[in-house]
Amino acid sequence: MKYNSTELLFTLDVAGTFVFAVEGAMAAIRGNLDFLGLMVLSFATALGGGVIRDLLIGAVPPGSIRDWRYSVVAFTGGAVVFFLHHFVQEIPTQLLIDVDAAGLALFAVAGTQKALNYGIHPFMAILMGTITGVGGGTVRDILLAQIPTVLRADVYATAAMAGAAVMILGRKLGLSPAVTAILGGVVCFVLRVVSVWQHWNLPRVAGP
Amino acid sequence: MKYNSTELLFTLDVAGTFVFAVEGAMAAIRGNLDFLGLMVLSFATALGGGVIRDLLIGAVPPGSIRDWRYSVVAFTGGAVVFFLHHFVQEIPTQLLIDVDAAGLALFAVAGTQKALNYGIHPFMAILMGTITGVGGGTVRDILLAQIPTVLRADVYATAAMAGAAVMILGRKLGLSPAVTAILGGVVCFVLRVVSVWQHWNLPRVAGP
Amino acid sequence: MKYNSTELLFTLDVAGTFVFAVEGAMAAIRGNLDFLGLMVLSFATALGGGVIRDLLIGAVPPGSIRDWRYSVVAFTGGAVVFFLHHFVQEIPTQLLIDVDAAGLALFAVAGTQKALNYGIHPFMAILMGTITGVGGGTVRDILLAQIPTVLRADVYATAAMAGAAVMILGRKLGLSPAVTAILGGVVCFVLRVVSVWQHWNLPRVAGP
Repeated sequence: MKYNSTELLFTLDVAGTFVFAVEGAMAAIRGNLDFLGLMVLSFATALGGGVIRDLLIGAVPPGSIRDWRYSVVAFTGGAVVFFLHHFVQEIPTQLLIDVDAAGLALFAVAGTQKALNYGIHPFMAILMGTITGVGGGTVRDILLAQIPTVLRADVYATAAMAGAAVMILGRKLGLSPAVTAILGGVVCFVLRVVSVWQHWNLPRVAGP
Repeated sequence: MKYNSTELLFTLDVAGTFVFAVEGAMAAIRGNLDFLGLMVLSFATALGGGVIRDLLIGAVPPGSIRDWRYSVVAFTGGAVVFFLHHFVQEIPTQLLIDVDAAGLALFAVAGTQKALNYGIHPFMAILMGTITGVGGGTVRDILLAQIPTVLRADVYATAAMAGAAVMILGRKLGLSPAVTAILGGVVCFVLRVVSVWQHWNLPRVAGP
Repeated sequence: MKYNSTELLFTLDVAGTFVFAVEGAMAAIRGNLDFLGLMVLSFATALGGGVIRDLLIGAVPPGSIRDWRYSVVAFTGGAVVFFLHHFVQEIPTQLLIDVDAAGLALFAVAGTQKALNYGIHPFMAILMGTITGVGGGTVRDILLAQIPTVLRADVYATAAMAGAAVMILGRKLGLSPAVTAILGGVVCFVLRVVSVWQHWNLPRVAGP
């Protein structure tokens, strides 16, 4: 079972890495950065969340530093956008939202699983899953000197958190790692996509 | 004595965590963030300094990740502000300055103590105490895309540094951990509050 | 040989630390910060890249926390600028570019070497060298709420990466650590200085 969850983790991580690298590269093009700036944003967006999670759970060196394949995946995602940007810019907004939600779900699930593998308390593992999901985008926004989307996008971190919480619940109920990962991922994805579609907002306090 | 300083550390850390979570939540309301954005800022402000310190001194996973009680304290601080914001906004400015100075003092002392517990050189422990005190507010300001207060607020990091230095001095003189912690905390608190009251400034170089 | 590369590392690191501390202090003066803000920027610029590298390669506590001499070097660099700013502001731009390129080269080489010493894969060691070179400046720019120069400066991270890659290549060819370090440093330095002189740009995608 340890072996299974390690393999599962790697697959989820690689898929999420590619998706977020593509998104980072697209943000770089919007910011008019050059090829290297684009690559830096691809890397930061794709690997930032996982690196922060690994530093926090004590998995040093972080997986994406220890294993060069993550970097190659992030590099490929960035290069695809750079060389095929005419096609990439034709992608409809709805598809981008879906792909982003998929990346969020993959990373939330992978982050929660890895935190559990490292013996982190389930309550904190939910936070670690959330950080894995939103960390890369936060680093990207900080590098672009913008207030991170996660602080403003209404149901984004909330979706990651809900997916992670479902995973923890599933494990308490004795479900297998694969089943809980799928359940958690689906909850995160659906919650994110539906919230954009329905313009769901979280409550806020009126400022002074 | 090791036991004593560990217990002392936890009490100081929890008190500082609550105070800084409240401050982070108030900054979030000023920034018109939603409930989750408020919680993220509460967490980042309350736990950011300690997490950075723990990563730097090699205490991984950081205490606030290992122990879920820190998160609950930060969450409670954020929730208090969210649900009682009408009362919170009535708090006079002077009280806020005092409470902030108290949080700064608690964290500076706790950070210095923990660095010493981990065998960090006393000179560097002063820096670690300072980082613990100002780190959370710095992360909060970076998330809000603002130049961190610590770079501008005149005697802020200086107060934390002075408190930490007093602690180190007290230990060299053979005082007990509790006495040095109280001395250091009082120096930091008084220096901060008096500097605001008296509009003390540090020297600067006129820009070109 | 392990001993040699450790000594080499320390010398390169100290030289780069001083150069970058001076630069951080000059950015602080341009930003009209006070003495402490200047010191914070000196420290962050001088030690930020190495701290990030050390966290990523699992060298905790980071060298510049473990060894108080780095802080003293950074402090000295900041103090020199603060007390001698009339002289510092007379330094011609070309010399500043050369000194910055030297700092970049020193850090790129030191970062790559240290990553290799910690058993990081050569491909990732190139990235670690690059991060060591550009990390401090990136932290400085984030603290000043600006988009990091590294995302915009045309051939900057690229020069660091080229120098690091030359080092790796030299090691594959069986050259000694000292020779590969010199080769890598010279490549980084020359590439950076010539690129500024010749206004070299990397390709970019036209934004929408």
